[in-house]
Amino acid sequence: MTELISPSLSSGWFSYAIRVYPHHTDYAGIVWHGSYITWMEEARVEYLRSAGVSFDQLVAAGVDLPVVDLTLRYHQAAKMGEELLIMTKFSKSQKLRLTFDYEIKAVDPTNPEGDRLCVTASVSLVPVDSQKRKILRSLPSLLDQAIAGLLG
Amino acid sequence: MTELISPSLSSGWFSYAIRVYPHHTDYAGIVWHGSYITWMEEARVEYLRSAGVSFDQLVAAGVDLPVVDLTLRYHQAAKMGEELLIMTKFSKSQKLRLTFDYEIKAVDPTNPEGDRLCVTASVSLVPVDSQKRKILRSLPSLLDQAIAGLLG
Amino acid sequence: MTELISPSLSSGWFSYAIRVYPHHTDYAGIVWHGSYITWMEEARVEYLRSAGVSFDQLVAAGVDLPVVDLTLRYHQAAKMGEELLIMTKFSKSQKLRLTFDYEIKAVDPTNPEGDRLCVTASVSLVPVDSQKRKILRSLPSLLDQAIAGLLG
Amino acid sequence: MTELISPSLSSGWFSYAIRVYPHHTDYAGIVWHGSYITWMEEARVEYLRSAGVSFDQLVAAGVDLPVVDLTLRYHQAAKMGEELLIMTKFSKSQKLRLTFDYEIKAVDPTNPEGDRLCVTASVSLVPVDSQKRKILRSLPSLLDQAIAGLLG
Repeated sequence: MTELISPSLSSGWFSYAIRVYPHHTDYAGIVWHGSYITWMEEARVEYLRSAGVSFDQLVAAGVDLPVVDLTLRYHQAAKMGEELLIMTKFSKSQKLRLTFDYEIKAVDPTNPEGDRLCVTASVSLVPVDSQKRKILRSLPSLLDQAIAGLLG
Repeated sequence: MTELISPSLSSGWFSYAIRVYPHHTDYAGIVWHGSYITWMEEARVEYLRSAGVSFDQLVAAGVDLPVVDLTLRYHQAAKMGEELLIMTKFSKSQKLRLTFDYEIKAVDPTNPEGDRLCVTASVSLVPVDSQKRKILRSLPSLLDQAIAGLLG
Repeated sequence: MTELISPSLSSGWFSYAIRVYPHHTDYAGIVWHGSYITWMEEARVEYLRSAGVSFDQLVAAGVDLPVVDLTLRYHQAAKMGEELLIMTKFSKSQKLRLTFDYEIKAVDPTNPEGDRLCVTASVSLVPVDSQKRKILRSLPSLLDQAIAGLLG
Repeated sequence: MTELISPSLSSGWFSYAIRVYPHHTDYAGIVWHGSYITWMEEARVEYLRSAGVSFDQLVAAGVDLPVVDLTLRYHQAAKMGEELLIMTKFSKSQKLRLTFDYEIKAVDPTNPEGDRLCVTASVSLVPVDSQKRKILRSLPSLLDQAIAGLLG
C-alpha cells in the first residue's frame, strides 16, 4: 500500500499530503475548484500544530482565527487518485493580520520536469474574540510564540 | 428564467426544490451520494419552519437536534442541471425520537411516467441540551407544538 | 412560511437568494469561509441561465468553464438561519477570460442601514475543450450570445 | 508533531485515520453528520487500494461503483481536533452487491475504557458500466481478485 508522504518542512515550506477522492471531483472528472479550500485549511492547522498550537486549544481559549482574505490561482487540473502536496509558508504578519502562502502540486513521478504546479494561493486571517467576534488588540501569546516558531 | 417550484405541502409531504449544480456532482457526472444529506437537512429545516419553528431559534434556546440514524436507498442517478424535489414527511415520534421519511424525485416533464424516483431515505433525531449534550427528558414545547402541527 | 426572494436583476446585478443551513456553518456558529464558493457557483449558473445558457447544455456541447482565478474578501460573518443575497455581475471579458464580480449581503430587515455586506469577491473563468482540457480559440457562440445578453 | 496512525489491517478491519478540521464541524462545535460519508468513502478507496485496486484505474476501465444503500447510526459526537479511526471491513457480496461495514472511533488516550465509538455504518455498492449506467452482469476480474484478497 502506498503511504502518503508525511507532513514535513523544507526550505521554509510546510508540506501536507492528501489524495484526491471521488467526493473532491466534479462532473469534469477533476478536482472541483472549492475542494482546495478544505485542504488549505487542513494544511494550515497542521502547520500551526507543528509550531505547538492546536487549533482546538486556541478555540477553547476563546480565540478564533477567521479568514479575511482568500486568493487562488488555478494553473493545472488535479485528477482523481492523484497525490497532492499542499505546501504552505507563513508569509507575513501585518499588525494582527497573518498571511500564509500556498503552492499545491500534484506528485508526478513519471514527469521528468517534476511535480505539476496546480494552484498558488494566499490566505489572511485575523485573531478575534470568539464571544464578541471583535478583533483582538494583540496576538495571544500562544499564537505569537507559534508564529515566531514558524518564522524561525 | 425557470423558477424552482416553491416549497409546498401536498398529501402530507412537504416538498422542497433544489437544482443540481456542478459542486453536487462527482467524476461520474451525476450527483455524489453524500450531496443528498445536505438537501435532506435543508428540507427538514424548511419543513419545521413551515410549522413555526426556526432552527436557529431552537439552537438559541439551548436545544440541538442531532441526527442519530440515517438510511438512504439510491434508486436512480440525478444529473447536473436537473431540478429535484426533496419530499419529506414527519413519520413518527417514538418517545423523544423524531423520524422523518424522504422521497427525492427528479422533475422530468418529458417522461410520460412522471417524475423519476432517485432516493428514498429516513432520518431520526433526538433533542439534546446544547451545553451538556444530554438527551432532554421531554420535547421542548416549541418543538412539541411544531410536531403537532406537522401531524395535524 | 417565508419564501426566499426570487432571482432577479437590478441595476446590472443579478441577485440569487439562499438560506444559511447547519451544514454551511462551522464550530464558530457562523458560515464556514468555503461555503461561499458553492453559492457563488450557483448564482453564476443561474445568472447564465437567465441569459439563455444552461450549464449542462454547455458541458454537453463539449465546453467546460473552469475557474482560473478566485478572490474573496470577508467583511462580516453570516449566521445560521440568515437569508443571503448572492449578487453577481459580469465584469469584463479580457480575450477569452470572463470575470464576474460578487457582493454577498445578509438580508437584515431590522437594520436601519439596510442589508449587511458580508463578502465581496471576484471569479475568472476560461472556456476549455472538455475532452482535451485546452483553452478554446474563441468563445462558443452559445456563450458569446449569453455574455452579450448579460452586458446588454 | 503528532503523526496520524498509518492505515493498517487488524483482525479483518482496515483502519484509516483522519483528523477533525474546522470544515468538518457545524455550529454545535462537533462533526456535522454528513462529514462521515466523505471519510467512509476515503477509507473504502484506501481499503481497495490495499487489495490492489486503485479507484481511478477502475473508473478508467469503464467501471463505476455507485453506492446503492447507506446506513449510519450515530452513537457519540466527535469533536474538533480529535483523531478518528475509520475502520472498515468487507462484509459480504450478495450476487454483485458489495457490502462494507464500518466502525468509527475517536482515539482517546485518556479514556481507561479505550477509544470512543462514534458511528457504526454500512454501505452497499454495485458495479455498473460507466457509459451505460447499467449494472454489470459479473464482477470485473480486477475487482473480483481484490474482493478475494479482502476476504482472504
